[in-house]
Amino acid sequence: MAFEKVVVAGGGVLGSQIAFQSAYCGLDTCIWLRSEGSIGRTQPKLDQLVKDYHAQIDAMEAALAKSRADGEPMAPGVWAMGIADPDDFDPARCHGAVDAAAENLRLELDLSAAVADADVVVESMAEQEEAKIEFYKKLAPLMAEKTVVVTNSSSLLPSKFTRYTGRPDRYLAMHFANHIWRNNIAEVMAQPKTSQESFDAIMEFAGQIRMQPLPVRKEKAGYLLNSMLIPFLFSAMDLYVNGISEPESIDTAWVRGTGAPNGPFQILDVVGLVTAYNIVQPYTKVPGFMAPYNFKGISRMLKEKIDAGETGVAAGKGFYTYGG
Amino acid sequence: MAFEKVVVAGGGVLGSQIAFQSAYCGLDTCIWLRSEGSIGRTQPKLDQLVKDYHAQIDAMEAALAKSRADGEPMAPGVWAMGIADPDDFDPARCHGAVDAAAENLRLELDLSAAVADADVVVESMAEQEEAKIEFYKKLAPLMAEKTVVVTNSSSLLPSKFTRYTGRPDRYLAMHFANHIWRNNIAEVMAQPKTSQESFDAIMEFAGQIRMQPLPVRKEKAGYLLNSMLIPFLFSAMDLYVNGISEPESIDTAWVRGTGAPNGPFQILDVVGLVTAYNIVQPYTKVPGFMAPYNFKGISRMLKEKIDAGETGVAAGKGFYTYGG
Repeated sequence: MAFEKVVVAGGGVLGSQIAFQSAYCGLDTCIWLRSEGSIGRTQPKLDQLVKDYHAQIDAMEAALAKSRADGEPMAPGVWAMGIADPDDFDPARCHGAVDAAAENLRLELDLSAAVADADVVVESMAEQEEAKIEFYKKLAPLMAEKTVVVTNSSSLLPSKFTRYTGRPDRYLAMHFANHIWRNNIAEVMAQPKTSQESFDAIMEFAGQIRMQPLPVRKEKAGYLLNSMLIPFLFSAMDLYVNGISEPESIDTAWVRGTGAPNGPFQILDVVGLVTAYNIVQPYTKVPGFMAPYNFKGISRMLKEKIDAGETGVAAGKGFYTYGG
Repeated sequence: MAFEKVVVAGGGVLGSQIAFQSAYCGLDTCIWLRSEGSIGRTQPKLDQLVKDYHAQIDAMEAALAKSRADGEPMAPGVWAMGIADPDDFDPARCHGAVDAAAENLRLELDLSAAVADADVVVESMAEQEEAKIEFYKKLAPLMAEKTVVVTNSSSLLPSKFTRYTGRPDRYLAMHFANHIWRNNIAEVMAQPKTSQESFDAIMEFAGQIRMQPLPVRKEKAGYLLNSMLIPFLFSAMDLYVNGISEPESIDTAWVRGTGAPNGPFQILDVVGLVTAYNIVQPYTKVPGFMAPYNFKGISRMLKEKIDAGETGVAAGKGFYTYGG
């Protein structure tokens, strides 16, 4: 049973993208915001998304035309599957859907009005436990019986919040990657009380908004991607801090050995060293956990670089130097 | 001081490639083999390499011509940096170097004659500890003072053998990836007694035979690549055996999330499940080592698939089905 009415609570980077994508796919969508101030911060993000989507559609049209003229496959990386399939791409229709999304997407300050009759509420608030609990407590009594609630929290497990939602069986997680119209995967994760029915409904909803749903059938910190990415980055930093080799050589080993586009230190620079540092901290406090890794050394190395302002691509310097 | 005379001990898959590559790069090269029977097994490998190199040079010539005609960069994956740089590619000279390698590369049964005056001996024998010790004991008294010895063992640490080489400071490891003329990386790894001078000499030798040398400054099981690849594959199998998700979804999360060409289960199918099973075994015996991973579950899962004949790409079926 397809969803029709979608509410996104929170207009941050991902909240805006999820809501805009939902509206782009023709669903009745609104963003609930806490205050007039939030509207002032969210509207510019939506205006930018309108430009980004139009630009992406133009780039796809050009790439498709070139590929047909050359009789060769399209350059990788151009196609945004969140926008259209190559075999079923109608640029005019896509541009129209962007304009319709911009027109139809509503911003609401009244939570009760926002969630009335919603099929799904996507909680996309800041990653603060207390603030989320507060929100769920306020939300619970306002929803219709049918409403399924999903959190897109990266770092807080849904089971922390289940009891505050008033619907343990209809509560789960749905995790997106940034730029969701291009990186269109959604990790759909159950918590222990999630029903199969609501899990299946959210898997289907992911498809409705053109995400590729990836099932995460049991609660797992890091979902699928970060459950692999984090230990991988640990193993690379461990080689460095133990004096085995240097970032450039470690990256080259990975890139040349696996064909990946980026090595671990290149990924760390994009993720940002502050984020990496925060992820490492709990591991430094559990002796023997993931025993072979020198977490104290990793933490110290990251701290030194952060203190020197070398926090990654955004700062112009991390393990590598960028720009100018 | 560049090396001139190279001896490869052992004519297996990698031994043959290392020797052929060395001869292709113009170094005086011989393969020492234990018996007439070994010659019968090695010569066909060398004959095949002659064909592979010629074919690779033809493919590179065609790709370069097409790229120049189109005014576009070459398709990735065609260029074998072990054969030539795109900017300095002379097909006739390369074909000539292949024929010269085939002509000049010698096979020797007499170890003493083989290693006389050698600059480097590359030990590329089977991965059997006793057999390697036997070989080093026989080799040690026959070598000139200057000779540096490297092992290309993947799984046995060089420090196990240092004492048998008679030259602790001139003994280290040099690890190649299969198809070395395409995957031209060489992990150059010191053991505790390796001198800086011989480490530097082998880094330079790697460059002489057109490998990209990756320094591994301290002894480390798995060198650089496998030190990252193995925990990464563990983390993926852990998600599967704990019922979090399925190989296809886990692979999709990695490929879509990082842009890598292959996910962990696709890599496992190429590596082969028997190899993966053997790598996991020691971990099942150390409680708490890399604590979060369910090694017993991983081992059981791999064993079941191996017992069912699903050992990977070579068997037509592993986590995925191939061919037919």
